Amino acid sequence: MGLDYRVSCCPDGLVTDRRRRIKVLDCTVRDGGICNNWDFDHDLVKLVFNALVTAGIDYMEVGYKTKDGVFDPNEVGPWRFCKEEDLLKVVEPGKIKLATMLDIGRVDLSDIPPKQDSVIDVIRIATYAHQMDEALRLLDHALECGYETFMNVMAVSTLQPDDVDEFLLRLAGSGVHNVAIVDSFGALFPHHVRYLVHKYMNYLGSDIKVGVHFHNNQQQAFANSIAAIGEGIDFVDATVHGIGRGAGNCPLELLLFYLDTPRYDVMPVLELVETFATLRDDLRWGYHLPYAITGYFNMHPKSGIERMNTDARYQVRDMYRRYAGRFQNRVLGTG
Amino acid sequence: MGLDYRVSCCPDGLVTDRRRRIKVLDCTVRDGGICNNWDFDHDLVKLVFNALVTAGIDYMEVGYKTKDGVFDPNEVGPWRFCKEEDLLKVVEPGKIKLATMLDIGRVDLSDIPPKQDSVIDVIRIATYAHQMDEALRLLDHALECGYETFMNVMAVSTLQPDDVDEFLLRLAGSGVHNVAIVDSFGALFPHHVRYLVHKYMNYLGSDIKVGVHFHNNQQQAFANSIAAIGEGIDFVDATVHGIGRGAGNCPLELLLFYLDTPRYDVMPVLELVETFATLRDDLRWGYHLPYAITGYFNMHPKSGIERMNTDARYQVRDMYRRYAGRFQNRVLGTG
Repeated sequence: MGLDYRVSCCPDGLVTDRRRRIKVLDCTVRDGGICNNWDFDHDLVKLVFNALVTAGIDYMEVGYKTKDGVFDPNEVGPWRFCKEEDLLKVVEPGKIKLATMLDIGRVDLSDIPPKQDSVIDVIRIATYAHQMDEALRLLDHALECGYETFMNVMAVSTLQPDDVDEFLLRLAGSGVHNVAIVDSFGALFPHHVRYLVHKYMNYLGSDIKVGVHFHNNQQQAFANSIAAIGEGIDFVDATVHGIGRGAGNCPLELLLFYLDTPRYDVMPVLELVETFATLRDDLRWGYHLPYAITGYFNMHPKSGIERMNTDARYQVRDMYRRYAGRFQNRVLGTG
Repeated sequence: MGLDYRVSCCPDGLVTDRRRRIKVLDCTVRDGGICNNWDFDHDLVKLVFNALVTAGIDYMEVGYKTKDGVFDPNEVGPWRFCKEEDLLKVVEPGKIKLATMLDIGRVDLSDIPPKQDSVIDVIRIATYAHQMDEALRLLDHALECGYETFMNVMAVSTLQPDDVDEFLLRLAGSGVHNVAIVDSFGALFPHHVRYLVHKYMNYLGSDIKVGVHFHNNQQQAFANSIAAIGEGIDFVDATVHGIGRGAGNCPLELLLFYLDTPRYDVMPVLELVETFATLRDDLRWGYHLPYAITGYFNMHPKSGIERMNTDARYQVRDMYRRYAGRFQNRVLGTG
């Protein structure tokens, strides 16, 4: 089959070394659940669990913890709540690190049991930078309860560099175990990623792991993950077939192909893809122009998602024109 | 809208400078035509022509030149032949550089008229490295006829480095104006691209322009184009909404967003996307597992395309297993 440029032409053994120690977090049920209100039936989530365990994936994020009264359980599936009785129907403890996500304002401290009373191993806190006080209160509680912790500071593409420095300094002294660079809007390109990886790693020091969570609005989720792996990050978020909000995430199967290590077995993931591929036509994640436009304009994907749910989903010129007028100075960041 | 990392955080003014002089070649009708046997009606091709002209795109590749007897004109549309009478129905000379592609073995020298007798400005020769003698004969003729010329040496991912050096040395003295790095199989990642851009530019010298033609099997067509632009290439191939063989090509609209220059107006391209997006469900280019698997295994996409045309398109484990057995040594390139 000719040359594999990876080995003979790649300038750095470093890249291979970095790939060797990377960890993978699957957030299929959590981020993918945004596409269908977490309405995956228990059997499907059990299928995902078993496949990820067999594939050797390091973490499975199985949904959100949410306090009572925020969502109607008749309208939103069980993985928006992650009650222990639902988790116990689909997982076995100790097979893979299980994570749930907390949204600021949608969870109370009392919703988080001591770790020994839960099958959950890992708490991931999703916060905007301006909510950091509340995020650190949740973090302190999660640490006291004995969990491994992640902090996902969302929409970093919208922040001024000083603001990034500020939250990183706070996180560096917080006791958190892992911090993700989160491109919620799918706005970043690889050169942004390299810049941010350097910043996060420099500010957070050697005791805190740095990872990435990317969205695919501009077909960069996997490419940005590759760029970040090359810069030496510790973990990557991915989802089966890229399912996730809007254009979705980095496809787990492509990531495993790329990592190309016997630590992971791609075959059980391909089996999952066979199931998830058939969902894509209905749930409409993937490359679509409305998502590309919100990504390009560095905006929340919600207007793109709304547009995709109408028959005018491909009539995108008005969207583009409206945002272009609003962000005439977008290149200089002064809009 | 916060920071634009492009400007304030990008390490290099160089990248911006390089983006400023890049040229864009649209091959929607030529490579996209592989999806539907070039069966675009004249009105649609005229629409593409007008939009590309208005958008300020530098080149439009309108199809292939093909000698009589290779394809049945009742089964294959006019853009596989590019007869002058068809071209004259859809283009106006002088508005954009018009290119046609020649396949080795499917065209005779007598099929290429003197440039003054054709609306075509540019001849692109598609060749495998082992067909270089014949490709150079075609090139000599195209140069004698007065055309600007491109050489697309296909499937470079399958070649040994020595073989790449060899054809580049021959091309360096050939009189050709432009040479594309062609990832026919969608197998390359950005670090391969950076390596190849350096090699092509070093071997071809300053008088020959270097560009890229990428396929999207592993969601890298646009990312690889970005990597190549960063290394200083001169032109990029793209197609409307990424239409093209298998997973398709770099989407023109994303490329124009990224280049972000007033030389190009994305709005007419978005209008085209509104038309092409509706074709995608039937023609099935884009991210699909069978294409990802052929890309990963550095193979021609034909088995992926065949698979996508069956109801078992998402049952990919057997494909993966078969190729994994065949290429057990793929990482070392010894298979």
